[in-house]
Amino acid sequence: MWVEEEIRQQPEVADRLLREGWPEAERIAAEARRFQPALVMLAARGSSDNAARYGQYLLGAFAGLPAALATPSLFTFYRRPPRLDHAWVIGISQSGRSPDIVEVIREARRQGGLTLAITNDPGSPLAAEAHAVLPLRAGAERAVAATKTYTAQLVALAMLTAAWTGDRTMQEELRRLPEAMARALESKGPAREAAASWWRASHGVVIGRGFNYATAFEIALKLKELTYIVAEPYSSADFLHGPIALVEPGFPVFLIAPGPTFHAEMQDLARLLRERAAHLTLCSEDPERLRHADVGIPLPPVPEWLSPAVAVIPGQWFAVSLARWKGLDPDRPRGLQKVTETR
Amino acid sequence: MWVEEEIRQQPEVADRLLREGWPEAERIAAEARRFQPALVMLAARGSSDNAARYGQYLLGAFAGLPAALATPSLFTFYRRPPRLDHAWVIGISQSGRSPDIVEVIREARRQGGLTLAITNDPGSPLAAEAHAVLPLRAGAERAVAATKTYTAQLVALAMLTAAWTGDRTMQEELRRLPEAMARALESKGPAREAAASWWRASHGVVIGRGFNYATAFEIALKLKELTYIVAEPYSSADFLHGPIALVEPGFPVFLIAPGPTFHAEMQDLARLLRERAAHLTLCSEDPERLRHADVGIPLPPVPEWLSPAVAVIPGQWFAVSLARWKGLDPDRPRGLQKVTETR
Repeated sequence: MWVEEEIRQQPEVADRLLREGWPEAERIAAEARRFQPALVMLAARGSSDNAARYGQYLLGAFAGLPAALATPSLFTFYRRPPRLDHAWVIGISQSGRSPDIVEVIREARRQGGLTLAITNDPGSPLAAEAHAVLPLRAGAERAVAATKTYTAQLVALAMLTAAWTGDRTMQEELRRLPEAMARALESKGPAREAAASWWRASHGVVIGRGFNYATAFEIALKLKELTYIVAEPYSSADFLHGPIALVEPGFPVFLIAPGPTFHAEMQDLARLLRERAAHLTLCSEDPERLRHADVGIPLPPVPEWLSPAVAVIPGQWFAVSLARWKGLDPDRPRGLQKVTETR
Repeated sequence: MWVEEEIRQQPEVADRLLREGWPEAERIAAEARRFQPALVMLAARGSSDNAARYGQYLLGAFAGLPAALATPSLFTFYRRPPRLDHAWVIGISQSGRSPDIVEVIREARRQGGLTLAITNDPGSPLAAEAHAVLPLRAGAERAVAATKTYTAQLVALAMLTAAWTGDRTMQEELRRLPEAMARALESKGPAREAAASWWRASHGVVIGRGFNYATAFEIALKLKELTYIVAEPYSSADFLHGPIALVEPGFPVFLIAPGPTFHAEMQDLARLLRERAAHLTLCSEDPERLRHADVGIPLPPVPEWLSPAVAVIPGQWFAVSLARWKGLDPDRPRGLQKVTETR
């Protein structure tokens, strides 16, 4: 199966990108610092948009840049793009061929903004429009559902962030990331067990916060693409502002809870969900937190800012296993093509 | 029922806000123009965050401001807020009491950014922290699910936008909005009919684009709060990048399709959904588009930039009717309080 093969390739793809792409990342980050952007705008769709969400937090936290996710229809349909002459505008696309994302980069460049393409295809229209390109070097992705290009996009954003800050500790932590990703591949067993308990679910929620808000979006998208479960992503805070009403006995919740920052918050949420008899699957490196779950998926420990590239992996296994439980072919989701062209 | 009463109050609330709040909106917009913000950042949770999403499009399209939705955890948990000294930061909250939103405004002001509170309680902590306040004047909202404060927030954002541009035509269009909202109240019958066809659904999607991306989020949230249906919001573009795989015969889709901009796009999407035998509920002022749906809900015609304040109304009726079909009390969603305090 392509998708399983590509999931397994992720540590090696990350490692190659870190080794070969580092000089480019340093050059791009230095150029961006010189530009002194007032903000960063990230333009993407699908899995790439989930990676963009990670970039929004990373560049906000470590580069101090207020970060917006682009609203492409203002550029394409309304033809009323906002002012981007002081913006660093980053287009993220596996194929580099979604016309709306290309248009955001083109317009930003026309206005005098600084532009960057993060793509797996350095010969793509997106790469051609941007001032700079950071190629993902992930090799051809044959499965329709993105896996290795998603984590490569996360790594690319983490490289740009570490290069921007010049922080040696961050750069060292980043270099050790592929090892942790390789250990995360071992989550296949517990992920399969969790999938078994979801196999009759038609819907559920996936919750993460901070850097792992992106992970919640990506795991929910894999579930939709591969298993046709209506899985909605939430931050733990937004979930309490309304959607918590959904929870009835047996309601399936997938909780992504690595790192120290949200320890108390995630404990409280897990307790609340248990009180309401939700069915709780939880990913964490912390045995204490895992004890609160119906199914616990252990994660290898990793600095929290890098945890999204690790925490998504059990979610990918989970979605693939669940597809198999349901007798679906994870390489051929119904009604999807590899490249979706939207305006 | 409070919620029905509050839905009906919306035209009068909008009218009062437009009359009494206009001088404030002009003063606030003039001050913001003088500040020459490089971007606008909107901080909100729940329904208010859906209003913020409308603000992101409005201020982008008509004030030319790149607009970001805030990531409160960078301020509260990570304590790594981005640089906001050139930002216009707008906190939106019915109660004005969510600690995370208050913290975003406090930090932005500390850094030298320009801050504004849009709230129903001018005596709230949020109002106290901001440079300026635009009170919603909606009267007490007693139902847990926000309706009249949501549309009042939309109107407040439209007022700020029209005041920023100084465009007389926009201001005139805005003055006529409460009339159109009153006509939208007449959608109760068709919305009830649509609800009848959803009563066995456990999940579904709500799709809108551009200005009405916000409407999709808000209607999906009402469905979750009032009917416990896992209803996920999408832009029509994002829906094609993966989630379209969900659609099987009978899959319920609620499509918000007012205005001319997305005419062809919405026609194509409706055709695609019909080919896959989805169950399609569609809101539009265009009889041609309504013909493509299983259940069509006619909207009164209104300039597209103002359509979210009109198009959400049948969605509110829809959620309330569906709650009744299911024997649920729309005034008392399980597990929700009126004010949710998150960090």
